[in-house]
Amino acid sequence: MQLLNSLPANSIELIGYFGSFLTSITFIPQVYKSWKSKSVGDLSTWMVLIVITSTLVWLAYGYLINSGPVLLANTIVLILTLVLLYFKSKFKA
Amino acid sequence: MQLLNSLPANSIELIGYFGSFLTSITFIPQVYKSWKSKSVGDLSTWMVLIVITSTLVWLAYGYLINSGPVLLANTIVLILTLVLLYFKSKFKA
Repeated sequence: MQLLNSLPANSIELIGYFGSFLTSITFIPQVYKSWKSKSVGDLSTWMVLIVITSTLVWLAYGYLINSGPVLLANTIVLILTLVLLYFKSKFKA
Repeated sequence: MQLLNSLPANSIELIGYFGSFLTSITFIPQVYKSWKSKSVGDLSTWMVLIVITSTLVWLAYGYLINSGPVLLANTIVLILTLVLLYFKSKFKA
């Protein structure tokens, strides 16, 4: 933790951007797996709906605080989770 | 968007807290569904691993910028996704 505290401010921002990057790509493997298997029975629709709702809230927040990384990450997550919601309606369990 | 721009600063923070709340509860329905069905074959292990990694990055970031909501939300998501990872190893597809 000593090491973390001595980091310069732009290193802290880099860590934030890395977190945004990882959050952005979170649903890529799930969309790929679901598309390949055409099977989504074990996926929680509520999880998908909560993620979609949360990205809309985060997009409003990112717009208000003028944060590019928040807007970008949540746009990508929103698109991927809308695809998952479509898969949930298309591929019946 | 006019309406959004005229919001006072603490309303903006409230939107951020609401986003944090939704992000925190994201994986609760998935853990519940997986626990009930004992079936996790359609869940992407890579998705779970990326979420776990991202929460660790966000926890470092939240510690550095001293953000309670970031620390709280990511601690909850980390615990829930560790449970999902355990389910992935326990409930064979």
